[in-house]
Amino acid sequence: MTSPNSDLIPTFADVEDAARQLAGVAIVTPLLENAALSERLGFRLLVKAECLQRTGSFKFRGAYNRMSRLSPEERKRGVVAYSSGNHAQAVAFAAKMLGIPAVIVMPADSPAIKVANTKSYGAEVIQYDRYRESREEIGKRIAGERGSVLVPPYENKYIIAGQGTLGLEVVDQAKAMGAEVDAVFVNCSGGGLTAGVALALAQRSPKTALFACEPAACDDTTRSLRSGKRERNAPDVRTICDALMTEIPGEITWAINSKLVKAGLTATDDEARRAMALAFRDFKIVVEPGGAVSLACALSAQRPANAKTVVAVCSGGNVDAAMFASALAAA
Amino acid sequence: MTSPNSDLIPTFADVEDAARQLAGVAIVTPLLENAALSERLGFRLLVKAECLQRTGSFKFRGAYNRMSRLSPEERKRGVVAYSSGNHAQAVAFAAKMLGIPAVIVMPADSPAIKVANTKSYGAEVIQYDRYRESREEIGKRIAGERGSVLVPPYENKYIIAGQGTLGLEVVDQAKAMGAEVDAVFVNCSGGGLTAGVALALAQRSPKTALFACEPAACDDTTRSLRSGKRERNAPDVRTICDALMTEIPGEITWAINSKLVKAGLTATDDEARRAMALAFRDFKIVVEPGGAVSLACALSAQRPANAKTVVAVCSGGNVDAAMFASALAAA
Repeated sequence: MTSPNSDLIPTFADVEDAARQLAGVAIVTPLLENAALSERLGFRLLVKAECLQRTGSFKFRGAYNRMSRLSPEERKRGVVAYSSGNHAQAVAFAAKMLGIPAVIVMPADSPAIKVANTKSYGAEVIQYDRYRESREEIGKRIAGERGSVLVPPYENKYIIAGQGTLGLEVVDQAKAMGAEVDAVFVNCSGGGLTAGVALALAQRSPKTALFACEPAACDDTTRSLRSGKRERNAPDVRTICDALMTEIPGEITWAINSKLVKAGLTATDDEARRAMALAFRDFKIVVEPGGAVSLACALSAQRPANAKTVVAVCSGGNVDAAMFASALAAA
Repeated sequence: MTSPNSDLIPTFADVEDAARQLAGVAIVTPLLENAALSERLGFRLLVKAECLQRTGSFKFRGAYNRMSRLSPEERKRGVVAYSSGNHAQAVAFAAKMLGIPAVIVMPADSPAIKVANTKSYGAEVIQYDRYRESREEIGKRIAGERGSVLVPPYENKYIIAGQGTLGLEVVDQAKAMGAEVDAVFVNCSGGGLTAGVALALAQRSPKTALFACEPAACDDTTRSLRSGKRERNAPDVRTICDALMTEIPGEITWAINSKLVKAGLTATDDEARRAMALAFRDFKIVVEPGGAVSLACALSAQRPANAKTVVAVCSGGNVDAAMFASALAAA
């Protein structure tokens, strides 16, 4: 395994640059607090309501940061992206904002809401079988045929830096609330959001511990952080956390996360459902299963006992009504 | 019918004063936009996500503004309030923040979440039969027995002025988004939020039309605005919009609303359910039935055709899981 060229790895300066690019374009999502809940829990819980971001997840930050830097010539040839859904919607919407044609390769079993939203932004959607075909190959083939630029979900400097702007906001918002954050819990799939937030925290809040949170069935980063090398998930895992299904940590994201993430943590699907119900009841926000794993981990016994002020990043809210209702019923 | 003493009627200066009192205490809730949805609708829809306010509704603004002005002597004797639930939670939580004992008189059929939350804030809850007993009488009796201060849900200068701070935020936030707001749709029960927002808009955005939105079954303000005098609801009406059930517009609120509200509009329970589902899907927020009537009206044919930029105030999110799931299923 080779390490990626250091030119490909974003730095804190890239995160700051992304913040300038996204100013007035991305939403500064609120950092919510329920004081009565914190009192019951025995620690201060702050929730970064990133489900309120444009297109319903953090993915818009990275997608726009990447695509807004394309040349006029590249914009004309269009972009292609593969995604389980949240990156798809983000690329489709950023493409619409920037006037760029977009093709999105999505798994056939993506939540209906994610496919419908992606199409509603005007993108062309090509579906494939998640368990039999390779989305990377389909994406690369289309990019080759059309001469379009591939917008990867996480293996890109601008994408990671864009996601990192969420970390800058958390630091600023916590400070404004008089909170010194001991730990941040962030959902981890390929590791782009984790890596971006890691860069922001390392520079701006170096005493804050960052935890990468994964579904128990897709714990590649958790195991990788333990073994010290990129570990792979079994190819046939199933979880309701569709946004967090991945094969293996990215190379670029791993170069950052292996150095800056404190540890990986996991939550079962049932724990994710209960966290969704808590976000509904106590924060009045809609969080999808893969957006609630961080909250589930923050609420679990895995939270370090000395973490008295904690941020859970609820990173997405694109969930079908039936799945949401079943999560509320199960809690 | 006598008009209330003009000393009792708040002015814009009282709203500004309330904003200073609430600065750093109440949450500045976000004004959300879904650009793709606005494009589909053909007008710009902004949603004031007041369900994200402390205690899950706008009621915290007025309750805190009133209670924070009590003398040390009054604070010792405590407060009493009657409420279908959102005012109850707000008074209970403000009481906790300010160290004031609170007794809350609530209907026996209040949503379980509202009763549980009120108790969780440390308040004493006394329940009564909404269809057979008078909450005003129970509240007054307890206030008399204990010497405590009655915190009414809307008939008070400080309460109305506190709710009005939401209107100031809408004006500022819309301006920051480059939006000139043609119409604001606000949920109306006793009329406190409506009156407060009316004062704010009349001064800061006089060209904006304000609509008071009610459940079709409880349309007292709508009928009052048509007839020019306070009209009463039938005593036995039923609606899922528990937060908007009232007998008659308040005297103080009516003194303001009769002058400053453009018209009353109504939505059926089914329309409220569909608005809840839209808020779930397109804004990722949890809105209760009575918090969604404004959105339902904004989405209906009642919206003036020339209203191209519209704010719907989603004023509360305290809804039981079963009711929320049924709204999603019905949509």
